Amino acid sequence: MTDENARRVRGSYRKGVAKRAEILRRAVVVFADSGYRGGSLKEIADGVGLTQAGLLHHFSSKEQLLAEVLDERDSADLERLGDAQGWAFIQSVTDQVRHNTTVPGLVRLYATLSGEAVAEDHPAHGFFTGRYRRIRGLMAGALRTAQADGDVAAGVDVETAAVSLIALMDGLQIQWLLDRDTVDMPGALDDFLGRLRA
Amino acid sequence: MTDENARRVRGSYRKGVAKRAEILRRAVVVFADSGYRGGSLKEIADGVGLTQAGLLHHFSSKEQLLAEVLDERDSADLERLGDAQGWAFIQSVTDQVRHNTTVPGLVRLYATLSGEAVAEDHPAHGFFTGRYRRIRGLMAGALRTAQADGDVAAGVDVETAAVSLIALMDGLQIQWLLDRDTVDMPGALDDFLGRLRA
Repeated sequence: MTDENARRVRGSYRKGVAKRAEILRRAVVVFADSGYRGGSLKEIADGVGLTQAGLLHHFSSKEQLLAEVLDERDSADLERLGDAQGWAFIQSVTDQVRHNTTVPGLVRLYATLSGEAVAEDHPAHGFFTGRYRRIRGLMAGALRTAQADGDVAAGVDVETAAVSLIALMDGLQIQWLLDRDTVDMPGALDDFLGRLRA
Repeated sequence: MTDENARRVRGSYRKGVAKRAEILRRAVVVFADSGYRGGSLKEIADGVGLTQAGLLHHFSSKEQLLAEVLDERDSADLERLGDAQGWAFIQSVTDQVRHNTTVPGLVRLYATLSGEAVAEDHPAHGFFTGRYRRIRGLMAGALRTAQADGDVAAGVDVETAAVSLIALMDGLQIQWLLDRDTVDMPGALDDFLGRLRA
């Protein structure tokens, strides 16, 4: 390959990567607004100046697009949690919730998709089932460590507290999205965590 | 009107009422499975042996059908709550959650629709915003009475506890629908309420 050709290939590759990222950002908005079932590939394609055929050149199907949206969001969230342990980990979760109040579009994405995905034939059903199991495990582990460290009261059932902590965060998102001036997500979470303290 | 004609009119009215009820039951199933945006009038009509035009003879639009589904469910739930006060009211909520474990289709209906309805242009957006405000008011009132009766600890902020109690129930439904053998909704709720006690 000549230098000229190599440059051209690299340039086109970079453009492809940028377009993929643009499509993913647009898909987040459309799925958050209309859900996966209600949102159309056409709407996403229109939003980034492509035809549907052009979009399918970057992602092989609507399902694949959904899967990549979810994977990317999850990686970003997990990175933010870092490698804190015990009570410090639990506190980093409240930081995450505080951060979420600045990104209502993403909160809406999860609220809409997790609601839809309870249907067994939904393409993200397996993703959400696995995700909740993983997060329950993480939370229960952190609470157990915090209990051993004397940061969580001895009487607390850590498995139940893990389920409830995650449920509380999910439910708060729904009320917050409907009524942002009334519902204080980080405040309610702190209140809940305060009652777990030793 | 002759007796014969009157009988015919009454018979046709009764059939109309029965058909309406059948359509509503079918709409619950379709909206629970596919959401409001993903579920189609055609699918509902097919399920009750009607054409779409035939269905629209009973309900003027898909939106009206959704509104009646939600109104009917809400009335049934409120009836079950009865007129208990204070801590007895809060306990009747855990009875409702226990009852919910026997009607997964209805739980799915609420999980799917409330997730969708966070979008401002969703036809049930106003319904859910109003419903949450009403339920928060009911819960905060019952918790305040329970606190005055000495059933809830003096340090509990009843407004925050009301938001959290409702959020917990909503979030538990998502996890339960995805993993029924693992997630114990009434157990997690009892655990939460136990920590509010005086």
